[in-house]
Amino acid sequence: MQSWLDIPQNSDFSIYNLPYGIFSYGKKKPRAGVAIGNFIIDLKRAYKKGLLEGIKIPKKIFDAPVLNDYIRLGKSVHRAVRERLQEQLQDPTSLLFRYQHKLLVPMEDATMHLPVAIGDYTDFYSSEEHATNVGKMFRGEANALMPNWKHLPVAYHGRASSIVVSGTPIRRPMGQYRPNDNEPPVFGPSQMVDFELEVAFIISRDTELGERIPANHAEDYIFGLVLFNDWSARDLQKWEYVPLGPFLGKNFGSSMSPWIVTLDALEPFRTQGPVQNPPVLPYLQTEGAHAFDIHLEVAIIPQATTQETVVCRSNFKYLYWNMAQQLAHHTVNGCNVRVGDVMASGTISGPAPDSFGSMLELTWNGKNPILLQDGSVRTAINDYDEVVMRGYCQKDYMRVGFGEVRTLLLPAE
Amino acid sequence: MQSWLDIPQNSDFSIYNLPYGIFSYGKKKPRAGVAIGNFIIDLKRAYKKGLLEGIKIPKKIFDAPVLNDYIRLGKSVHRAVRERLQEQLQDPTSLLFRYQHKLLVPMEDATMHLPVAIGDYTDFYSSEEHATNVGKMFRGEANALMPNWKHLPVAYHGRASSIVVSGTPIRRPMGQYRPNDNEPPVFGPSQMVDFELEVAFIISRDTELGERIPANHAEDYIFGLVLFNDWSARDLQKWEYVPLGPFLGKNFGSSMSPWIVTLDALEPFRTQGPVQNPPVLPYLQTEGAHAFDIHLEVAIIPQATTQETVVCRSNFKYLYWNMAQQLAHHTVNGCNVRVGDVMASGTISGPAPDSFGSMLELTWNGKNPILLQDGSVRTAINDYDEVVMRGYCQKDYMRVGFGEVRTLLLPAE
Repeated sequence: MQSWLDIPQNSDFSIYNLPYGIFSYGKKKPRAGVAIGNFIIDLKRAYKKGLLEGIKIPKKIFDAPVLNDYIRLGKSVHRAVRERLQEQLQDPTSLLFRYQHKLLVPMEDATMHLPVAIGDYTDFYSSEEHATNVGKMFRGEANALMPNWKHLPVAYHGRASSIVVSGTPIRRPMGQYRPNDNEPPVFGPSQMVDFELEVAFIISRDTELGERIPANHAEDYIFGLVLFNDWSARDLQKWEYVPLGPFLGKNFGSSMSPWIVTLDALEPFRTQGPVQNPPVLPYLQTEGAHAFDIHLEVAIIPQATTQETVVCRSNFKYLYWNMAQQLAHHTVNGCNVRVGDVMASGTISGPAPDSFGSMLELTWNGKNPILLQDGSVRTAINDYDEVVMRGYCQKDYMRVGFGEVRTLLLPAE
Repeated sequence: MQSWLDIPQNSDFSIYNLPYGIFSYGKKKPRAGVAIGNFIIDLKRAYKKGLLEGIKIPKKIFDAPVLNDYIRLGKSVHRAVRERLQEQLQDPTSLLFRYQHKLLVPMEDATMHLPVAIGDYTDFYSSEEHATNVGKMFRGEANALMPNWKHLPVAYHGRASSIVVSGTPIRRPMGQYRPNDNEPPVFGPSQMVDFELEVAFIISRDTELGERIPANHAEDYIFGLVLFNDWSARDLQKWEYVPLGPFLGKNFGSSMSPWIVTLDALEPFRTQGPVQNPPVLPYLQTEGAHAFDIHLEVAIIPQATTQETVVCRSNFKYLYWNMAQQLAHHTVNGCNVRVGDVMASGTISGPAPDSFGSMLELTWNGKNPILLQDGSVRTAINDYDEVVMRGYCQKDYMRVGFGEVRTLLLPAE
């Protein structure tokens, strides 16, 4: 597909992508948009100009400061919009071409916002390499993976209120930790703030309490994916998490990328996930390919430099449990989901040591500090470090990317 | 205080209480109301009739199907409304008296709804007796309490979407459990569905991400309290919960009572909580009394009988950690809270064996089945059992109660 619009060849936001986000510009209120090259299509204005005529979209859907009501319209609408925009982007006689100065907003003029109102946030733990690494460090080689791990996609509930969009700084959390196991805990700024490289999916359909989503239909309930940095304070988490799981070690903030890449855009990059052995219970069995080949990387940019160091290169396809299985499991007990819910993958580590998705693993619990381009070393994230996660799919000429999730860590206050 | 309205002497909803809820009747849409005796004051109509004149309440606040915007108005408004209603209930020349046939809806004609839109739900674990009982059963006497337990109010995030109001049936969850530790897990209906007797508080003020709520101001952020049944599937939970905590064992449903009893109404029942030893860190220290003397009980009503058996009598004041400490801890890392958030206490067990707040503890993991009035025995909740929780405060003539949270357990489907 060729567009009359100048789309840089390496752009994450090619005509094959068309991800959704919420943006504002000038004095305009936040509204829905679609990313294309270095521009954002203002969907509110596009709708008014008749660009989407014939597609069943109620008035004012694109005025909302979140995408939930648009997402709720369903995949047939999303597909029709996607096709329409692709047509308009190719046709030099289209309305989009004619009104481009009104409808296309340069990204550099826009501020991005959280794209959805999030009801509940669930965090899975679906990377075998990550779970094994953590297990080895804290429980030893023999008991690295818990007995339940290969039977169900382990998960816990996280905090929805503290999920923020890329660009929002996060403050180093205060809290309790115990430097010495034989002494009482102390209170102060966390000494071990870490990132976790994750990808999250956004729910597109409500279910009723008591309803189950079958694994082979689960993707119908997924609107799209974002990059997700599940910030973690390792010292707080270590002291607090027994027996009910992570709490203050996680809920001081999680960062997500602003553009939701739809499953339709990711379709060409579908691939087989790892073989599951032992076989999973019937309700978790899926047919076909349910993994996606998404290249992921994490970079650290220290204060007072623009020099970044890529510390991790991983891939979404490494995950042992796929999204369909995660969602089937989440609802097998009748737990209901709602449009806008966020379900994150858990840290995505690969087999190679430079593919581990957290500083905890990359430095092997601090034993192997990482040398950055500016000569400084890290075992955790420093104040004023910026952490940037990026993700993209590439197949020949076709590129579908996520942009980035970028977060500055501020000192404790 | 004497009212012209006939309020039964043992009513939970005395003139000293005036709790808030959301109700509907006839073909009317859900709206805000205040319980008094066997009636509900329709706040939407009361506002229109000028009953609340002079109090700063924006129009349409009482039209909303949830209380969040009313709660957000702040304690000064809530207090003014409370005093105004108490005046009107005492004065036989008042507007409320004059329009009583329009403004007072018989409870028996009303349907209650979830009173707030819940952003996030947190469940604490603040009863020393409960944590000790569970610890003894699963880890033995010596390691009953975890090392962190007396240093911080342990908590985890729960699922907000599956919180339902009293009267909503809950379905027995399906899921994985492992009957034999040496064999693979099986899939089927949970064999051990249990209640957990809890009390939850509702947040009344938003905070910003990065903001901390000091313990001695924490009650300013609490609107009021409800009874809370944190339904638990013990077998699912046992298999899934390591290492990240409870998930499907809890999120198939939690039930709350429909009336939010304000902290102002509970003020006369304030009392000292347990002595905390070792001393807690400064950010968790509170001055004065922060416990509340609320009698609690749980009854089971088997199918095909109206005969109930009270299986547990406990008290909110037994909790080791008070609400101010819980909220100070929750936000000490900068985690933000939002109006309508629900924070539950965790199972409230007392010192006596008949005060334990779950079947797990009451039957000591099934070893001592409970005999019900109808001659049947229980180690867990059966299909079509109704579980009823009640709570009230009493001091001389003054009674402030919560009503009940009542839930029917339906069979797995």
